[in-house]
Amino acid sequence: MNVVHKYGGTSVATVEKIKAVAQRVAEVRRDGNRIAVVASAMGSTTDELIRLARQMGDQLNPREMDSLLSTGEQRTVTLLAMALENLGVPAVSLTGFQCGFVTDSHHSKAKIWRIDSERLERAINEGKVPVITGFQGITEDGDITTLGRGGSDTTAVAVAAKLGWDCEIYTDVDGVYTVDPRKCPGAKKLSQISYGEMMEMSSLGAGVLETRSVELAKKYQVRLFLGRSLEKDLTRGTYIVNTNAFEEMPVTGISVIDDCTMLSTRCDAMGENGVSRLFSMIAELNINVDMISQQTLDPEHCMVSFSCPGESARRLIGEAQKKGLPYAFISQPSLVKVSLVGAGMITHSGVASKAFSVLSQSKIRYYQITTSEISISITIDQENKQRAVETLAHAFDLCENRKDMGK
Amino acid sequence: MNVVHKYGGTSVATVEKIKAVAQRVAEVRRDGNRIAVVASAMGSTTDELIRLARQMGDQLNPREMDSLLSTGEQRTVTLLAMALENLGVPAVSLTGFQCGFVTDSHHSKAKIWRIDSERLERAINEGKVPVITGFQGITEDGDITTLGRGGSDTTAVAVAAKLGWDCEIYTDVDGVYTVDPRKCPGAKKLSQISYGEMMEMSSLGAGVLETRSVELAKKYQVRLFLGRSLEKDLTRGTYIVNTNAFEEMPVTGISVIDDCTMLSTRCDAMGENGVSRLFSMIAELNINVDMISQQTLDPEHCMVSFSCPGESARRLIGEAQKKGLPYAFISQPSLVKVSLVGAGMITHSGVASKAFSVLSQSKIRYYQITTSEISISITIDQENKQRAVETLAHAFDLCENRKDMGK
Repeated sequence: MNVVHKYGGTSVATVEKIKAVAQRVAEVRRDGNRIAVVASAMGSTTDELIRLARQMGDQLNPREMDSLLSTGEQRTVTLLAMALENLGVPAVSLTGFQCGFVTDSHHSKAKIWRIDSERLERAINEGKVPVITGFQGITEDGDITTLGRGGSDTTAVAVAAKLGWDCEIYTDVDGVYTVDPRKCPGAKKLSQISYGEMMEMSSLGAGVLETRSVELAKKYQVRLFLGRSLEKDLTRGTYIVNTNAFEEMPVTGISVIDDCTMLSTRCDAMGENGVSRLFSMIAELNINVDMISQQTLDPEHCMVSFSCPGESARRLIGEAQKKGLPYAFISQPSLVKVSLVGAGMITHSGVASKAFSVLSQSKIRYYQITTSEISISITIDQENKQRAVETLAHAFDLCENRKDMGK
Repeated sequence: MNVVHKYGGTSVATVEKIKAVAQRVAEVRRDGNRIAVVASAMGSTTDELIRLARQMGDQLNPREMDSLLSTGEQRTVTLLAMALENLGVPAVSLTGFQCGFVTDSHHSKAKIWRIDSERLERAINEGKVPVITGFQGITEDGDITTLGRGGSDTTAVAVAAKLGWDCEIYTDVDGVYTVDPRKCPGAKKLSQISYGEMMEMSSLGAGVLETRSVELAKKYQVRLFLGRSLEKDLTRGTYIVNTNAFEEMPVTGISVIDDCTMLSTRCDAMGENGVSRLFSMIAELNINVDMISQQTLDPEHCMVSFSCPGESARRLIGEAQKKGLPYAFISQPSLVKVSLVGAGMITHSGVASKAFSVLSQSKIRYYQITTSEISISITIDQENKQRAVETLAHAFDLCENRKDMGK
């Protein structure tokens, strides 16, 4: 089996951890596998570099920031390559540019254009373990770029896609759970989940993998595994695979996003102060809204509601007042968006009605509802979060054992 | 005037110092000059990275070491570029590869082959201050290299040579002195010194500039200045220039190398155990010897003496014993090599005889003597170092004031 391993910042945070990763990689190789490694910056390096940069002044030139931050991964991969060589494993570190990661020039959130992989493939053909910097690339003009949040996962999946290998992401959690175990201690670990479900879970706040890397894995059909660092038993993590709905389980998991605010306002149905003006202002402010709903009040007026992060809501209200726009926002802050995710929803009806009935029985008020093919999202009051998550997890059989569940 | 400024590790050791350098660069630019900056890694970064690498094991792959160490300068230049931008000075950081420093592949001591300077010149033409990583380059195969000791000075001189600009090296000393002021407190600062003298001074232990960067400056006729960081008054440092001997001053300076050992042995004049066998063994052990002298004892035997660092002498004696070679070394350890340097020696005779007579009057025993066109080197006992340096400095008018001289 050929595989790309990805180790995140906590997995390489210290000299000892880097050496432990080297041991693990050496073992995988001894078992007859070809392996490439993608690594992040050690521990809190990136945060420290950002703090250092902030001391230079208010302007943080994004090109310079990317070049600065890229040194973090460069240090990890050279150290890891040396640790491997000291175990008798031939290895070669490759930075973003050495690995041929050509990106666009959107510094701090660059998109990969292509991988010029001659150097990478040469290293593999020479029997070496390539140790690749996650998170970074280079523009055609020779500027260093970074890929933004979750960039190292994206690097690993992209390398796997290019080589046609599997991809194993090692992190500080031991897999994907039906619900965040911190929010619902009895949550079950999933042995597998579909790309689509994982993407929904990620974008709805599960936080274990960025949506973007899962999307890339789906596009190139990369077999993806997520597990705890140095775990050898691959039955203990989660496979993200190209699977159909699991018949027995219409709901695979629950994810939660905190600090939602619901804003409602009366609008002209058409014309200057209509809905479209409102949403173009929202777009100008670079605010992401979701859960939009609209009700007609009379032929000329409607009521529009949507939710967004609390900070965005405050910014939007301030901006509308500053511009003297005639929107009287009703704000419902401190909400939580709870989402049920499951590829099985496509074939199972009744998930929504069961969810509503469960919440009603528990006297939990809900505000807005949105649905996709494989998810249902509901906003509730912050104070009801814990109870709602536990109740729904129980109703949809997402917990190991009711007894284990905390408050 | 167009100028390359080079700032060493101590000059950029802290956030405050980087910002102070940015201020200085901004002022030079405001005065209507074009300026490029070369910077080293912050403070003790390089040492810390080496310590980190050593923890990976005994083998320190030189390719990986170079890639690891290069991150030090990369951090400095991105921070400095950001500091400049915050002062309203457009700047762009350039790593070794972005600046087009193509080198051979001798990791840790790479030689510059050429500078592909399109990117550098584009930055200058766009009115930006290029902030260039010292000490590093890239092979044609895309591997990061470092230039070895004094590499950042070499980078600065090479950039100045390529652009046809002047080069100002800022460091923690305020110029070149006739004698190391720590060894002879009354030593005079030189306002100028010739390339040749500076090269002799450097290679004979003066330690302010590596020989290699002076050699490069001489080759490309770069006007070189050495001064203390953030010094604005350029009359206060030292210019290294293309000058003839200073008539009044046959000796420009004194440099000192500690821990010399003189080894002497009887050899066959010819044949298997002859002088050539001895020196091929020395070469195999990668030991640098100097001050070689040879005396004929009889038609078949001779006595050979040479000096080398103490550690090398011990290694050489051990190796000869291990191989059972018939050299009975007489070892004279704990010597010091004191060198008088001055382009004026070419035209002034009598420097050697004056030196010998001064040392004899002071009852300072000397062992070996070597001379070049512009230097005379003498080995003496360690215990006489201070007295010899002071006496010679006084005799050749290299001190400000006899009263100031310490013990």
